[in-house]
Amino acid sequence: MEVYLGIDVGGTNLKFGIVTKKGKLLKKEKYPTKDLRKTGDFINGFVTLIGEELKNHPEIKKVGIAVPGMISKNRQTTVFMANVPEFNDVALIPILQKKYPEISFFLENDANAAALGELHFAKNKVPKNFLFMTLGTGLGSAAILKGKIFKGGDGNAMEAGHIITSNGKTAEDNMGKHALIEMVKEKIKNGKKTRLTAKNLEAKDIIIAAMNNDPVAVNVFEYVGTVLGEALVSTIRILDIKTVFIGGGVSKAFYIVEKNMMKILHERLPNYYTDNLDIRLATLGNDAGIIGAAALCFKK
Amino acid sequence: MEVYLGIDVGGTNLKFGIVTKKGKLLKKEKYPTKDLRKTGDFINGFVTLIGEELKNHPEIKKVGIAVPGMISKNRQTTVFMANVPEFNDVALIPILQKKYPEISFFLENDANAAALGELHFAKNKVPKNFLFMTLGTGLGSAAILKGKIFKGGDGNAMEAGHIITSNGKTAEDNMGKHALIEMVKEKIKNGKKTRLTAKNLEAKDIIIAAMNNDPVAVNVFEYVGTVLGEALVSTIRILDIKTVFIGGGVSKAFYIVEKNMMKILHERLPNYYTDNLDIRLATLGNDAGIIGAAALCFKK
Repeated sequence: MEVYLGIDVGGTNLKFGIVTKKGKLLKKEKYPTKDLRKTGDFINGFVTLIGEELKNHPEIKKVGIAVPGMISKNRQTTVFMANVPEFNDVALIPILQKKYPEISFFLENDANAAALGELHFAKNKVPKNFLFMTLGTGLGSAAILKGKIFKGGDGNAMEAGHIITSNGKTAEDNMGKHALIEMVKEKIKNGKKTRLTAKNLEAKDIIIAAMNNDPVAVNVFEYVGTVLGEALVSTIRILDIKTVFIGGGVSKAFYIVEKNMMKILHERLPNYYTDNLDIRLATLGNDAGIIGAAALCFKK
Repeated sequence: MEVYLGIDVGGTNLKFGIVTKKGKLLKKEKYPTKDLRKTGDFINGFVTLIGEELKNHPEIKKVGIAVPGMISKNRQTTVFMANVPEFNDVALIPILQKKYPEISFFLENDANAAALGELHFAKNKVPKNFLFMTLGTGLGSAAILKGKIFKGGDGNAMEAGHIITSNGKTAEDNMGKHALIEMVKEKIKNGKKTRLTAKNLEAKDIIIAAMNNDPVAVNVFEYVGTVLGEALVSTIRILDIKTVFIGGGVSKAFYIVEKNMMKILHERLPNYYTDNLDIRLATLGNDAGIIGAAALCFKK
């Protein structure tokens, strides 16, 4: 059976997974990113980790790597990663190819890879054109156009998290995890009733509280809906794509986000768009990153 | 010599031009749009006008038509034109093809056509990827990607005039001709010193005043720069295209617009983008619409 190695590089963890051609995740491992950081030679450590996987699984001939940032147009080099700066300007594919010449390596941005994962492995039939918005630490985004990752002019299209919204901030600065935490802290300071406490507050606490109808937490995700709606309005106006997949950790609270998001979309877009809007939750869940990375191996 | 008929449909005029394969405009005619409107059968009148041109110029075998609005993905049907509602949902190409079966007809959005005109006929060498922003009655936009008009998912990509800016309004609502006039009127009401008068004020008066250093008019175009900068930030983040052509009537005052536009671009975009920004004035001038329409005939 043909299997692929999918690697999802994140600021917190490096996730490795063995994935079948049908998108089934057979095995999964996690390495804390900071452990690799401590060694002082991040790239070499990363290359070695891959080597160990390849040794343990000689059946692997193709490896897909998803990274959280910008990459070169030819998909050979990592360019800029805010959360994994060790990857800034690294000729990753040539390094790996030289070390493991018998293996094919594929590099892609993580949101793009996750969108490709949905394209190949979503539980329902997926159209050839869709937007993919991933609500996590930041606001990731990707587009599939004519069944392919949309790369734009120079390779790094779809940084929709950085587009401007109606309060002058970028979408991500309004609704990234850091912003959510700050919003709740501000509301606590202003005496709003909530079960949340400012100390050690994490985004996941806010998600759980929202799902338990905590008014402050619900309020925060309603606001996320407004911001996401605005980001989508501008993105849809530029790309004319009307199917949207919503993924990422925060999407658990999407049922709260949705109402304001739809309100903005319907207020701001004419019927040409809204008549055919199709908003869906992504289906691959927590493993979207690994499975998306493995989906890159379909390429050749 | 092979020549094409280029037709630029606008809310004010229908412009017809005979254009050579090298983009030279040999002959130009204008019909006021409202004259055709008065006949009560706009589409039939339009088809007849084309017929007369074809009769007078039997050497024409290809006709390109640029329209100010949305068209079908297959470029056969006009979908929605705010300023020429007679064209809403008209199967224009089939109608023309049936009437003049020996002629090839090509339909495109006007900003797209103008961008294609720059691609083929600009005075300097043009890259394969660029944005095209046309500052006129509204804010039109187009993108050329890999040497082709970028159509997005369903055919009507690049409605950048309708993306959201930092004051919550769309770019076009902030900087379209109507907005410029209202801004000046507001400033006059507030006693700002200007040679402009509120009565019968037209956008072209503001452009001329700005070029003559009228402080209110200059101020208005400085504001246009901020808005255009924001629209470009979001568009560039989504498309990763770093060359921008600026066209349209208001671009005469672009030297005033430019400063704030560049300020916003440099404030909002990281080096990845700004290191390679290339902002240019469009070169085809007033005839960009006709020449762009004729450029559609290169297709087959």
